[in-house]
Amino acid sequence: MHSHYTSQLDTATGRIDLSHGGGGRAMSQLIAQLFIRHFDNPWLRQANDQALFEVETGRLVISTDGHVISPLFFPGGDIGSLAVHGTINDVCMSGAQPLYLTVGFILEEGLPLADLEKIVVSMAAAAGQANTPIITGDTKVVERGKADGVFITTTGVGRVAAGVDISADRARPGCAILISGSIGDHGVAIMASRENLQFETSIVSDSAALNSLVTDMVAAAPTAICCLRDPTRGGLAAALNELALASGVGMLIDERRIPVKPEVRAACEILGLDPLYIANEGKLLCICASPAAERLLEAMRRHPLGRDAMQIGEVTADPHHLVQMTSELGGRRIVDWPVGEQLPRIC
Amino acid sequence: MHSHYTSQLDTATGRIDLSHGGGGRAMSQLIAQLFIRHFDNPWLRQANDQALFEVETGRLVISTDGHVISPLFFPGGDIGSLAVHGTINDVCMSGAQPLYLTVGFILEEGLPLADLEKIVVSMAAAAGQANTPIITGDTKVVERGKADGVFITTTGVGRVAAGVDISADRARPGCAILISGSIGDHGVAIMASRENLQFETSIVSDSAALNSLVTDMVAAAPTAICCLRDPTRGGLAAALNELALASGVGMLIDERRIPVKPEVRAACEILGLDPLYIANEGKLLCICASPAAERLLEAMRRHPLGRDAMQIGEVTADPHHLVQMTSELGGRRIVDWPVGEQLPRIC
Repeated sequence: MHSHYTSQLDTATGRIDLSHGGGGRAMSQLIAQLFIRHFDNPWLRQANDQALFEVETGRLVISTDGHVISPLFFPGGDIGSLAVHGTINDVCMSGAQPLYLTVGFILEEGLPLADLEKIVVSMAAAAGQANTPIITGDTKVVERGKADGVFITTTGVGRVAAGVDISADRARPGCAILISGSIGDHGVAIMASRENLQFETSIVSDSAALNSLVTDMVAAAPTAICCLRDPTRGGLAAALNELALASGVGMLIDERRIPVKPEVRAACEILGLDPLYIANEGKLLCICASPAAERLLEAMRRHPLGRDAMQIGEVTADPHHLVQMTSELGGRRIVDWPVGEQLPRIC
Repeated sequence: MHSHYTSQLDTATGRIDLSHGGGGRAMSQLIAQLFIRHFDNPWLRQANDQALFEVETGRLVISTDGHVISPLFFPGGDIGSLAVHGTINDVCMSGAQPLYLTVGFILEEGLPLADLEKIVVSMAAAAGQANTPIITGDTKVVERGKADGVFITTTGVGRVAAGVDISADRARPGCAILISGSIGDHGVAIMASRENLQFETSIVSDSAALNSLVTDMVAAAPTAICCLRDPTRGGLAAALNELALASGVGMLIDERRIPVKPEVRAACEILGLDPLYIANEGKLLCICASPAAERLLEAMRRHPLGRDAMQIGEVTADPHHLVQMTSELGGRRIVDWPVGEQLPRIC
């Protein structure tokens, strides 16, 4: 039969070659036997170059994120689960509930199909858990040495409920600054796994989809949340500086209140890293009207991904938009923007 | 001032380094001085990790496409304009009008900022011309030798008007098969530019946004269009086979009716290529109810991107879903799926 795919992808020993991106039979097989099979949903089965969905009048958000993490597999996840979590989190930092995902793969010739299948299975599981189907996608293949295994760009669409109005420019002096849990886990897990450090088994990435935590927070205080941001690249320091700049305010945080796991703190000392600047993939920063802070912390702590939530400081009036921190010894220092690149390809 | 970007990106002699993907000051400068500056729109200026837009009840489509073309600059376009056109075209092959685009850049350390700026300016122009703003994005940087200059993944969202119902599985025996113009221009332009062939100046890519052509076609025959597809990777041969398979039909086309420019045909002979299998980036294949074929051809020919539109064949009943072609000599041959990879990184 010319038009039926009788041959099977060899996911045990096969490798990606240029024909898998050529638009012909090999690409169709890859799509059918790997992507459609695992992401299984009616949109993909329709075999269009786009997916169609119904909406009701209201506000949607869209977000896109490329993922180039190295190594592809790490303690607590892999590039596939990370690509799903990362984009879902960017969508829900607007207060939206994610609806759909799309995925663009850039594959390097020679990538073992077994690795790709593991990644696809992991993406499918992460998308399923977050109730956000992957409804369309694209695959490109480049020659050996022109990429690094696999890069994954995901895009997410979500819906913002009426009355919810969350944006980077809405922080006001007096607002409370909350964090959903300990910082630095993701970055340190990646570094440890790259460097083959002894403590690597005890530290795992916090990579997780935050949409159900956001749902609980929005339900607890629908109009009191001003800003949400997931402190990924550049860590808490970058996220606070971005929000300070966008809102035209300052921030004052208290080092003693910022949760850092002892093993992460120890690893940071060995590696010469500052947890404030290290990427997280399952934490959120929330800036809210001060009277709602306790209510939000309670809602966060009831959720498995917010158990260690803390208020870590407050928004100040500051024409220089500085982020400052009261240190454990009582002094005050400026938490500046990250400079240079400490941890390339952390996400 | 800590929180204002006083230093200027050096777009004359500067190069991408890992800090441009680090989440810190260098990344903020790149975003502000290159992306926000050229893509300029209120969504990007809000500095959120996602963009928000209002919708009315109805049907949306979403499509995503990675672009890895080599070389980055080619006769008739560059990776930036191609990334805009490619995704707009995938969106409008559902009959939708595109509304918004997102972009994910994967940059290789060492990429000249002057090249990146040229690409960004070209994307901005293409998006402006197609009336489809780029409202959110992401940038990642990988080490030298781990990518190839720049990869661009674009995602587009569009809206389908009521009554329009276009999908790969809707072709029926008796339908007419139309093509909007000559085939093979894009692929041959890229090959010629790679090989430094003498005829390269006379052949330019057909890369173009097809949304206004689709608007005119939908207006001319809102309910008669069954399938639309842009014959990109794998060319007309792959597009016809995909539609035949998805709809469970056969196709019969007539070689004499398929427009191929003389210089493209000549280049194909030199390069040993078959125009049927060569990528196009500004053409569409339309399958429509036969009585509407003339009306659609007239509408297409009135549009600058459809001047050379032709009916090239018709849909047949065929349980084997074969695509067959009457050749110039009168014989009939099977136009099979492309096998292997003739033209890697054509888009």
